[in-house]
Amino acid sequence: MVNAPKSLTRVIGIDPGLNVTGYGIVICRANEVNLLEAGVIRMPRSHGENLAERLESLFVELRRVIEEFNPEAMCLEEVYSHANYPRTAILMGHARGVICLAARLAGIPVLSFSAKRVKQSITGNGNASKLQVQRAVQNYFSLHRVPYPPDVADALAVALCYVNRRAMKTFAKAVIPSEARNLALR
Amino acid sequence: MVNAPKSLTRVIGIDPGLNVTGYGIVICRANEVNLLEAGVIRMPRSHGENLAERLESLFVELRRVIEEFNPEAMCLEEVYSHANYPRTAILMGHARGVICLAARLAGIPVLSFSAKRVKQSITGNGNASKLQVQRAVQNYFSLHRVPYPPDVADALAVALCYVNRRAMKTFAKAVIPSEARNLALR
Repeated sequence: MVNAPKSLTRVIGIDPGLNVTGYGIVICRANEVNLLEAGVIRMPRSHGENLAERLESLFVELRRVIEEFNPEAMCLEEVYSHANYPRTAILMGHARGVICLAARLAGIPVLSFSAKRVKQSITGNGNASKLQVQRAVQNYFSLHRVPYPPDVADALAVALCYVNRRAMKTFAKAVIPSEARNLALR
Repeated sequence: MVNAPKSLTRVIGIDPGLNVTGYGIVICRANEVNLLEAGVIRMPRSHGENLAERLESLFVELRRVIEEFNPEAMCLEEVYSHANYPRTAILMGHARGVICLAARLAGIPVLSFSAKRVKQSITGNGNASKLQVQRAVQNYFSLHRVPYPPDVADALAVALCYVNRRAMKTFAKAVIPSEARNLALR
């Protein structure tokens, strides 16, 4: 595990969805990276097909989480299209839009990483399965069980991707000559 | 032209986009339907690739429009996937999510109609071209020019689709026996 830079404190990772949105907050103190809080925001079934009500639930709940845990950055997976589920991908876009807005209104920068990069960062394999990602998150935080539902593991994985990237940059700045560093961090 | 029901007053139609979002507000008084206001919300170029900043601009500007014109319903085209532009469709989903949220936070119901239905309602042809829709909106409100950019015409078309649907329902209730009405309005 690469240690996190000292300057970084709290990062929230999000796995967006209209039924369930996973979130995970990691906290970095000195050379440690710890899990502060993780969970899901569920959109109540009573809201049925009313998209606007669901988005409001998500917005209100996420703002509550942000207010409570005060993260300094938000991380998400990059937008990508599921060729087989284009409508689901567009609906997920609605949730992602509201999530980005909540971060922006709280003054938190939003960073995004490709799914491949997140998997590579946490498992060492850009094509890792969902279960491999869950296991990697479990090992990283020495959890007794695999995080459940998988949305929680995905949210934590994207937060760790950011933490690892920053740690790599700090490490590289300290020990690698600048030309080689530019190559290594491309 | 079908007259609007007396109970309806102001309706805002929206054509969502991350670069330009069109809006149009129609006002119904007695048996008249008039154009109250129409325009576009442009996301400043200075925001570049920052999605969260663009969404915040859209949210803030749309809330300002809602506050100023106080519509009682918001109308949008239904979610649909552009097979050739899946990424664009997902990004449009981000804008649409924020738009639905703005309506919901203002206590305005959001109604959506398929593109086919909107075109059918305003031109009589569910497969009408963009220009045909623009011309139909121009004729409806006796405008000197075709509404420009097209996002404005699309926004007005979806608002008129709602107005016409309600007017049809009111008309049907008054003059068509209930069994035939159910068939006609299906």
